[in-house]
Amino acid sequence: MLKERLRCEVLKNRVMEPEQAAQFFKKGMTIGTSGFTPAGYPKAVPLALAKRGKKGEKLDLTIITGASVGEELDGELVKTGIMKRRYPYQTNKAVRDAINQGKIEYEDMHLSHTPQWVKYGFFGKIDIALVEAVAIREDGGIIPSTSVGNSNVFVEMADKVIVEINTSQPLALEGVHDIYSPKNPPNREPIPITKPHQRIGTNYIPCNPKKIVAVVFTDIPDKTREVAPIDENAKKMASHLIEFLKKEVELKRLPKNLLPLQSGVGSVANAVLAGLIESKFEDLMIYSEVIQDAALDLIDAGKAKFASGTSFTISPSRLKNFYDNFDKYKDKVLLRPQEISNNPEIIRRLGIIAMNTAIEVDLYGNVNSSNIMGSRMMNGIGGSGDFTRNAYLSIFTTVSVAKNRKISSIVPMVSHHDHTEHDVDVIVTEQGVADLRGLSPKERAKTIIENCTHPDYKEPLLEYYHDVMKNCIYKHTPHSLEKALSWHKRFLETGTMKK
Amino acid sequence: MLKERLRCEVLKNRVMEPEQAAQFFKKGMTIGTSGFTPAGYPKAVPLALAKRGKKGEKLDLTIITGASVGEELDGELVKTGIMKRRYPYQTNKAVRDAINQGKIEYEDMHLSHTPQWVKYGFFGKIDIALVEAVAIREDGGIIPSTSVGNSNVFVEMADKVIVEINTSQPLALEGVHDIYSPKNPPNREPIPITKPHQRIGTNYIPCNPKKIVAVVFTDIPDKTREVAPIDENAKKMASHLIEFLKKEVELKRLPKNLLPLQSGVGSVANAVLAGLIESKFEDLMIYSEVIQDAALDLIDAGKAKFASGTSFTISPSRLKNFYDNFDKYKDKVLLRPQEISNNPEIIRRLGIIAMNTAIEVDLYGNVNSSNIMGSRMMNGIGGSGDFTRNAYLSIFTTVSVAKNRKISSIVPMVSHHDHTEHDVDVIVTEQGVADLRGLSPKERAKTIIENCTHPDYKEPLLEYYHDVMKNCIYKHTPHSLEKALSWHKRFLETGTMKK
Repeated sequence: MLKERLRCEVLKNRVMEPEQAAQFFKKGMTIGTSGFTPAGYPKAVPLALAKRGKKGEKLDLTIITGASVGEELDGELVKTGIMKRRYPYQTNKAVRDAINQGKIEYEDMHLSHTPQWVKYGFFGKIDIALVEAVAIREDGGIIPSTSVGNSNVFVEMADKVIVEINTSQPLALEGVHDIYSPKNPPNREPIPITKPHQRIGTNYIPCNPKKIVAVVFTDIPDKTREVAPIDENAKKMASHLIEFLKKEVELKRLPKNLLPLQSGVGSVANAVLAGLIESKFEDLMIYSEVIQDAALDLIDAGKAKFASGTSFTISPSRLKNFYDNFDKYKDKVLLRPQEISNNPEIIRRLGIIAMNTAIEVDLYGNVNSSNIMGSRMMNGIGGSGDFTRNAYLSIFTTVSVAKNRKISSIVPMVSHHDHTEHDVDVIVTEQGVADLRGLSPKERAKTIIENCTHPDYKEPLLEYYHDVMKNCIYKHTPHSLEKALSWHKRFLETGTMKK
Repeated sequence: MLKERLRCEVLKNRVMEPEQAAQFFKKGMTIGTSGFTPAGYPKAVPLALAKRGKKGEKLDLTIITGASVGEELDGELVKTGIMKRRYPYQTNKAVRDAINQGKIEYEDMHLSHTPQWVKYGFFGKIDIALVEAVAIREDGGIIPSTSVGNSNVFVEMADKVIVEINTSQPLALEGVHDIYSPKNPPNREPIPITKPHQRIGTNYIPCNPKKIVAVVFTDIPDKTREVAPIDENAKKMASHLIEFLKKEVELKRLPKNLLPLQSGVGSVANAVLAGLIESKFEDLMIYSEVIQDAALDLIDAGKAKFASGTSFTISPSRLKNFYDNFDKYKDKVLLRPQEISNNPEIIRRLGIIAMNTAIEVDLYGNVNSSNIMGSRMMNGIGGSGDFTRNAYLSIFTTVSVAKNRKISSIVPMVSHHDHTEHDVDVIVTEQGVADLRGLSPKERAKTIIENCTHPDYKEPLLEYYHDVMKNCIYKHTPHSLEKALSWHKRFLETGTMKK
């Protein structure tokens, strides 16, 4: 086992217990870790760090990851007071609470910005790269596990590297990664990807073994989540979306097999992607961040030919089947660094159809993906901006109401802006589709009210729109500064957006 | 003259008066025209179209340009009721008024989106391409004048092409253009630019002469504007910006000669760029949309080696000198299609330092570049989003107050969002610099108040911030939905943001 997993001779005497490896972490350090969605993140060393926190040590660490990570890292380090600052994305309850209580500092970043900021030195020095691997090669090369994220960049830039070899992650993953790191400007070259399945790098993260100060063995599995069962609303959204895409093909604005698909993370996104299984589309390609269950289902159904991502986030109940049949998937999936999976250059070149979920959308097509009622951070934007900003078509999905219809997801003005009117092409709710391309703001308002709004809120929205069209002097993007956020205010005061 | 300017034999019998060419335009057509900033736009045919409008004809044209154009096109077609719909940017008073009165439909688009939308068919068919040229080649190839914008794309996609040969534009411009048109996905290849001065295309717009239905001669000059004299505030902003850039070089986060610079259009942007003449920076490169006076000054001063753009917008008083000395500039300037000058792929690869002007900025770093008090469209976002979204460093400049201090440019919440917190790295006002990189929203608020806000508004902003930190349950991006837009509301009601 050891021989297969740790193939580099000189590293054999650097194998140690997690507690010992945790001693490398000093107060105020900046740590870059593996992990993208709860997949491929380090577990044993963070748990050992948490023990130091429980003893009352204040380490005030800055933790930079790929994206969200699991409880052993995010949850434990926040609960034990070890983490002071967090980039660029999270989905952990304890972290979310600490952010919203103002206890830790969080910058919600575009996921494609993080790797280049590390390489540009904008975060300062990366003291330690802490990455999960399935094995270390003879030459020190690190073979990642279920995600790549920013691991390669942290390993490249950090002074010290600590590797967790996770034996719960199968060695079969070797070969599924494609590691490529663009140079910094002014020496950057074109990234030579023109098709989603193209390989351009190495299948390991190059690393001088001298930098690896500790190797820790663990077998704690990824804590991925079950995806929610596909409900009626998700089915309706998927069906609307497919109708829309079919029409685009008929109008010759999309090829018959569409263009590479990106889909956000989570149950709704998964359900929408799953809807394509029932469609007539064939030879689909996926170029996304996260390869979720639905991507595997599309491959199984012979609908998708290939899925490129930076992370496998397979639900626990699906994982065994995925690993058992990995040979079947191996030439149909690929994991890249997030600097490549989320790269504007590639997204624009391939002509990605970006499908992301919104918390709320407003009359003019602005989207809030992060802050509930303007101030309550949910998770963050993740890669939605990377894809939305450079996509061929940028689509947002949301159920038209939330909280038992007490919240309308279509509002006069979003309470927080993550994606502006300039970047949002299509809105899909269970009610229907609003195609906003080429429309002026007031035309957008009409089509969004007409096609996407829940019947409970159609009248109130029309009322707002007619009111501002009448009373606002300026008719391009008319608003009432008094009433624009009044629905949110009402909800906070009365528990419902309804009058 | 005719021989030099119109070199294609078969086109000689298609030379006609503008009035005759104007007859090709039918009701409801979609027209793509040359022009980017008031440079290189068609003049004679639009004036002839306006005559049709004055006679009471309703043409309801959709006009798509590169960016803003001059009075002969935008002003005249709106005033005579010929224009019904306008993309993607404008700066004309009559158009602005018509937009704000709700008389014409306007979508404020990212300038790099327009060309691909034309090629994707998202605007429907382009009926006529109407482009200004300095000459037509033997093979029908069109040599643009002072801008490229979307001309090449309109010529490529339109059924009919009408060329205005403008003899006020010197033939010396031949050779300064570099025309390249990426294929649509899924066949798009890397754009092979790795340095701002690289040539990758032809110096003319390829065009089958059969498509050219009319050639019109004119000598109406571009109506560019004088740039405002550089005032104290602009000098201060330039000086703050230069100090900031110097520090970045010291910290080795920028090379000694910086990275290619993009600068927005207008007097403030011009002044900021002009400030670099006094700096110690050398061998600067410009990769921008618009080559303004300051870019020429930087070249004259031996500070800038090269300027790549899509338009020469040289002030009237500077233009003669520019043309008289064109030989000196010819190998130091280049005009590309806006699909290339504003391309996310190139902007990210080259590592552009993007410097754009904001109308207002809020505590958390969101930027409004288009709508005054939330609803009054000024011009539009232009290329600011293209550059901001993919830059190495994204910098916004604004004077901290406007309207005799009755407006603070730093507000609790911007009244319209064009660039979100995720895309804004640095704010510069005459008061100082706020470097927002790596800061959480509440840290951003503190540094913006401290460094950028006018003394008149520092206390009120701190008051808002302390109030929401105390009273908002959620402390990540705390806001009061009641008070967030109250400053704008107060201004609309009382004429000042001051209490």
